[in-house]
Amino acid sequence: MAERTARVAGSLRRRVYLALTGGLSGAGRLTATNKVIILLIVASIGFAIFESEEVVRGPNSWIFQVAETGFALAFAAEYLARLWTCAEEPRYRGFRGRLRFMLTPAALIDLLALAPLVFVAIGSEAFVLRVLQLVRILRLARIGRYSNAANAIRQAVRLRRYELAASLLAGLSLMLVAAAGLYVIEGTDQPDKFGSIPRAMWWSISSLTVGYGDVYPITVMGRIFASLVAVIGVALIAVPTGIITTAFAEVLSKAEAQASARPIARV
Amino acid sequence: MAERTARVAGSLRRRVYLALTGGLSGAGRLTATNKVIILLIVASIGFAIFESEEVVRGPNSWIFQVAETGFALAFAAEYLARLWTCAEEPRYRGFRGRLRFMLTPAALIDLLALAPLVFVAIGSEAFVLRVLQLVRILRLARIGRYSNAANAIRQAVRLRRYELAASLLAGLSLMLVAAAGLYVIEGTDQPDKFGSIPRAMWWSISSLTVGYGDVYPITVMGRIFASLVAVIGVALIAVPTGIITTAFAEVLSKAEAQASARPIARV
Amino acid sequence: MAERTARVAGSLRRRVYLALTGGLSGAGRLTATNKVIILLIVASIGFAIFESEEVVRGPNSWIFQVAETGFALAFAAEYLARLWTCAEEPRYRGFRGRLRFMLTPAALIDLLALAPLVFVAIGSEAFVLRVLQLVRILRLARIGRYSNAANAIRQAVRLRRYELAASLLAGLSLMLVAAAGLYVIEGTDQPDKFGSIPRAMWWSISSLTVGYGDVYPITVMGRIFASLVAVIGVALIAVPTGIITTAFAEVLSKAEAQASARPIARV
Amino acid sequence: MAERTARVAGSLRRRVYLALTGGLSGAGRLTATNKVIILLIVASIGFAIFESEEVVRGPNSWIFQVAETGFALAFAAEYLARLWTCAEEPRYRGFRGRLRFMLTPAALIDLLALAPLVFVAIGSEAFVLRVLQLVRILRLARIGRYSNAANAIRQAVRLRRYELAASLLAGLSLMLVAAAGLYVIEGTDQPDKFGSIPRAMWWSISSLTVGYGDVYPITVMGRIFASLVAVIGVALIAVPTGIITTAFAEVLSKAEAQASARPIARV
Repeated sequence: MAERTARVAGSLRRRVYLALTGGLSGAGRLTATNKVIILLIVASIGFAIFESEEVVRGPNSWIFQVAETGFALAFAAEYLARLWTCAEEPRYRGFRGRLRFMLTPAALIDLLALAPLVFVAIGSEAFVLRVLQLVRILRLARIGRYSNAANAIRQAVRLRRYELAASLLAGLSLMLVAAAGLYVIEGTDQPDKFGSIPRAMWWSISSLTVGYGDVYPITVMGRIFASLVAVIGVALIAVPTGIITTAFAEVLSKAEAQASARPIARV
Repeated sequence: MAERTARVAGSLRRRVYLALTGGLSGAGRLTATNKVIILLIVASIGFAIFESEEVVRGPNSWIFQVAETGFALAFAAEYLARLWTCAEEPRYRGFRGRLRFMLTPAALIDLLALAPLVFVAIGSEAFVLRVLQLVRILRLARIGRYSNAANAIRQAVRLRRYELAASLLAGLSLMLVAAAGLYVIEGTDQPDKFGSIPRAMWWSISSLTVGYGDVYPITVMGRIFASLVAVIGVALIAVPTGIITTAFAEVLSKAEAQASARPIARV
Repeated sequence: MAERTARVAGSLRRRVYLALTGGLSGAGRLTATNKVIILLIVASIGFAIFESEEVVRGPNSWIFQVAETGFALAFAAEYLARLWTCAEEPRYRGFRGRLRFMLTPAALIDLLALAPLVFVAIGSEAFVLRVLQLVRILRLARIGRYSNAANAIRQAVRLRRYELAASLLAGLSLMLVAAAGLYVIEGTDQPDKFGSIPRAMWWSISSLTVGYGDVYPITVMGRIFASLVAVIGVALIAVPTGIITTAFAEVLSKAEAQASARPIARV
Repeated sequence: MAERTARVAGSLRRRVYLALTGGLSGAGRLTATNKVIILLIVASIGFAIFESEEVVRGPNSWIFQVAETGFALAFAAEYLARLWTCAEEPRYRGFRGRLRFMLTPAALIDLLALAPLVFVAIGSEAFVLRVLQLVRILRLARIGRYSNAANAIRQAVRLRRYELAASLLAGLSLMLVAAAGLYVIEGTDQPDKFGSIPRAMWWSISSLTVGYGDVYPITVMGRIFASLVAVIGVALIAVPTGIITTAFAEVLSKAEAQASARPIARV
């Protein structure tokens, strides 16, 4: 009798395991359960975003409370289900195996993402919650786990990580030289903006990337120097783009070569 | 006698059909009729643009009315001609076939683009017209139908749609994390700009793409965080560029391989 | 005697011809004369730039006058020398040939670039001169004639001109849709900035390319729409980059294939 | 006895030499000494940056003085060690060889980077030091010496230097034409911003690269012209990106071809 229960439970565990992880190994397809979880994550992020806006939350406070509780229960259930079914993989069997599973990055992110919801239930201080909202967004990282296409991008970045680091270093050096230059040239003209290298770095970083326009040189020398820096900066952006493109082409051609080299293994 | 009329009509329909669609199949050339229609579409968009500017329209109101009526008649005639000649293709023959043709996306866009012109004739309310101006621009999509070169771009995007989606997701995640970060850091310093995540998202999206400079961090912590986000954001833009380039190279080499593999079929 | 003079003159003409055009045909090297002319052009552009600045010109007015006269004489001499020596090429012989040479784009640019200098000599009205300063910069186009490397870029652009035009059209359509959208959404909120489609187009074009930050949406709907447009706009920029890269790779590999296919012709 | 001392000293010199330069030749690995020097350089740059900020330096002035002295001693020791051990390479032996080593760019940068630290010890004028802060950042260039990955980028840039120069020239021409155009169009409307070509160039360079938004056209004609320039400018950025990508792909495929062509040399 107990044996039969165990067999039924084992078969149920297998089915839950496949429903939860079917998208990771094998054919790379998302199971229906996966899709429901993705929808729940997106919905909970959406709620977290609009909860922070007083205009939206104010009159609908109870909706957010109900939704928060619902998400907390759903994600807690998912976490427990993953913990229960991880024993389907031999390396996660037994007490030690379960512990090893709990310490995998994926499981830790799952647990961490649960935290803010539990804090809501306890009723902690507002500011703590506010900081934890950030952690909540880490749930997005779990969607990344489901995606197979992201791997090609990750491989391309890893393949040329030294070249990318070198071009990043070149960019940071340009930012530093630019900041030091304008600190020397305009430090006395606009002391609040270029009066020190860290202050001038806000100008150099923001103008080489975003371009807010809140800080800019006003002297002739400063403008000539800033123009030179800007032209070099635009040229520099071409370098990581070229590196990534070449790496991506290499990763894809390797993947194709592998796919055509083992036609039997695929059948 | 009736038979002869039918034959003449049939031959006329064939000629009109070829004049309207010659550019779609076969040699990929634009017929003279196609070029006239493109010119009319560009002209009607031009009129729609300047009609909205009171300074231009005010003293020349009658010119716009005459032009609108002219465009309405021309595009209505074109639509009816397409509906009449679609029976040259077997699948669009008979009442059902015509209905099927009317429900193709291309024909629906043609009909929708006619709407604002008809509304002008009826003399409806100003605001409704104003919204429909947007639909009018959809006429541009029809020029796209004539272009063969656009296909290579579309194929390249489709070929790597999962990789592009993954990099888009990474970009959106960065925007979300950036918004949440500055909401936590500067939410109390600039409550009207970073007081909630949706408000902070206006900053993160606009600064990672356009860079208006109407919102920017003012605290030291906020600026350090914003600098980090800006550097990552610039690096992220390299990824979709690399994907598109690789995909485009693949699409073009496949097209060339096909062209050289069937030299007889082309003759 | 006259025969000998003619022979000497012919040999001198040949030498002048080679000094002026040696860089165009053959080995693609710049002659010493070419380098002097390039230096003169750059110097005259430099003078034209600083002449416009009252702070610089005011006290040094006579230097600019002397320099202008010098440049006028030098470029007039060069133009006459080209006109004299063009007969070294058979197709430009005789009165008709000379006329044909004078009507080539290169010769017309040379003549046009001479105009402002002659006007200075005549002493014409200030405003006319101001407009002609722009023409003066066309002299830069002549440097382009000397450069061989520019050809690869030009070939790459020409090779994929239809694809580039299609992506340009996509960009312009996005600009138009964006302008129409914000005209509808914020036309009544900021009538001076979005009160008509042409006004809104200043916003859409400048924010999708440069990002001045003088015009931006202020309503929630307007910001959501502008965010969507901005994300699509950034993605769109990847397309022409991909096309140019692929075209450039193709042009270079073709050039290498040709170079290795005719090893004898090179010797 | 003296012979034995010489032998020991020679063996020590060899070991110091390997510790200092192991990363340059051979396996391309950084030695432990290299890593310590890199850390020291980064630390000294960090101190230089924060030293310029009064808020940070004010109360901690003595920490900066101690650190400066420490860095001065460490880098002086490193310089002397390099000068001592350079004789391990035959070409740098003897007095003349040492002098030749001291005049290599790398050794000159090392010496130049020492200067500001010595000036601190002497106690020179504040302003001179301020200018020398810039030289200090040159130390970053030494990190570049250690990096092998930077070579591929440098080779790619060198391989297509003429094409990159041509596209840079095209960009500068566009900037010049844009500045001249707005000088003519808006010179009288905004004399302080577009009143001369050099003034208008601040607009054209900054708007085509960074986009501060401190200067922008206000007339209809000026905005139409600026829009055209902006669209061409965005298209121009695609060209150097394409060139760099193609060059990088070529450099990497050559490196791989070389690696597979000499499999014995590697063993």
